[in-house]
Amino acid sequence: MPLTCDQLRAFLAREFPQIHQDFIVEDVAPMRARMRLAFGDRHLRPGGTISGPSMFGLADVSLYAAILGSLGPVALAVTTNLNINFIRRPEPADLIGEARLLKLGKRLAVGEVSIFSTVDNDLVAHAVGTYSIPPRETVS
Amino acid sequence: MPLTCDQLRAFLAREFPQIHQDFIVEDVAPMRARMRLAFGDRHLRPGGTISGPSMFGLADVSLYAAILGSLGPVALAVTTNLNINFIRRPEPADLIGEARLLKLGKRLAVGEVSIFSTVDNDLVAHAVGTYSIPPRETVS
Amino acid sequence: MPLTCDQLRAFLAREFPQIHQDFIVEDVAPMRARMRLAFGDRHLRPGGTISGPSMFGLADVSLYAAILGSLGPVALAVTTNLNINFIRRPEPADLIGEARLLKLGKRLAVGEVSIFSTVDNDLVAHAVGTYSIPPRETVS
Amino acid sequence: MPLTCDQLRAFLAREFPQIHQDFIVEDVAPMRARMRLAFGDRHLRPGGTISGPSMFGLADVSLYAAILGSLGPVALAVTTNLNINFIRRPEPADLIGEARLLKLGKRLAVGEVSIFSTVDNDLVAHAVGTYSIPPRETVS
Repeated sequence: MPLTCDQLRAFLAREFPQIHQDFIVEDVAPMRARMRLAFGDRHLRPGGTISGPSMFGLADVSLYAAILGSLGPVALAVTTNLNINFIRRPEPADLIGEARLLKLGKRLAVGEVSIFSTVDNDLVAHAVGTYSIPPRETVS
Repeated sequence: MPLTCDQLRAFLAREFPQIHQDFIVEDVAPMRARMRLAFGDRHLRPGGTISGPSMFGLADVSLYAAILGSLGPVALAVTTNLNINFIRRPEPADLIGEARLLKLGKRLAVGEVSIFSTVDNDLVAHAVGTYSIPPRETVS
Repeated sequence: MPLTCDQLRAFLAREFPQIHQDFIVEDVAPMRARMRLAFGDRHLRPGGTISGPSMFGLADVSLYAAILGSLGPVALAVTTNLNINFIRRPEPADLIGEARLLKLGKRLAVGEVSIFSTVDNDLVAHAVGTYSIPPRETVS
Repeated sequence: MPLTCDQLRAFLAREFPQIHQDFIVEDVAPMRARMRLAFGDRHLRPGGTISGPSMFGLADVSLYAAILGSLGPVALAVTTNLNINFIRRPEPADLIGEARLLKLGKRLAVGEVSIFSTVDNDLVAHAVGTYSIPPRETVS
């Protein structure tokens, strides 16, 4: 049962209060999600750019949202692998993560994310991640 | 000119004030570094575990320290790729990152990091990263 | 100076006689290339599927072709990193590699490849690779 | 039930006749395996070096052997992800793959491989791979 944008927002706010102010749901659809990193001083790094962990976090939450958007909140998917390439150094401003699932199997999901700057729409990073999907409990 | 532990601590405190309280230099030597993530509530995630971005940050700073420990502070190495595998979910406690360089070339450095829990010394994550090393300026 | 399809075919035939019969140039354009793996018994694996090294080879040559298609044959790019996800097991038939460069810098190129089966156009693998581009010689 | 060297050799010869002459079991133990690429002209690339797909194949078979060495031949593990870094160009001679499992779970195995040249024992490539382990059938 896929999640709507509003359902995904409510789910993330309830389950991930720690990151709920950093990451904003822009859009979600089966196999896809678009998330925004709301830039703040805590994401800054020397030279006026955005930290690697912040971009990693955006890639991870965007893929996770795409899985939730497809399977519903039952699935507590766990990140098992994430490979990220940093393409250019982003300016200090909001970033957009565009996630697309390449596979949504019973046990594994694989997807890719492109991270764009909102200043100029340039690609600043690209990631591919694998998620383990726990066995669905049979509810009787 | 390699850096000593104290020189590396001073360098990170000066250049990375944002992360200086999260990551502690435990040891550094040519081609190697050991860093500690000082666990705090901001690293927590649902289920009482440590966030992916915190582990990513530890992997990245450990590899960066190994490069600085070998080349000295002149080198402003830039992360170009990081691939991380999450092995088991860590308990909420300090983590140790053990970085070892596999290659330190003129243009690229490649290294691997094992991340251990301080609770039981179990491996919780493993990463491999590539860093671009800018051309050394000829000082006349 | 970009390469045309015919120039790329001639270049690969001359420089890579070992693989020239396995991989066929379908299309090339700046930042993009499409290559075909001409399936043969030597690519088979138990269960009637195609070997991992064959798919790795297709991913690598597709990205390499996209770089040659953009820079011309002067560039002897060297693969430094390749991350491949196997999505589903392909049937024993030709495969298509669609490569797209994400970055073409002075020192590094980064690109992604989707590998499709020609039986049903399903995605069977996805890869991201990094290439080191040697310094261009100044010809006087 | 772990496999001995001789059992692993017999298993690979029977199940993988296509690659059986390329890859030689040197040693196997729980969580570890050492395999040799028997160099031949078909592994050559321009400049007198060894092809990327050959090194990919050695990394993959070394990790697969470490899984078989731990679980026995029941397990038909499937490669889901492989990330490989090419460190230096190997000379045309046998290569050794030293594989070590980082995790051997019920559903996933993760391991790393170092590939050495037999000419000078230098590290020429390093890879990390993930394998999906199918559910064990309950035999009644």
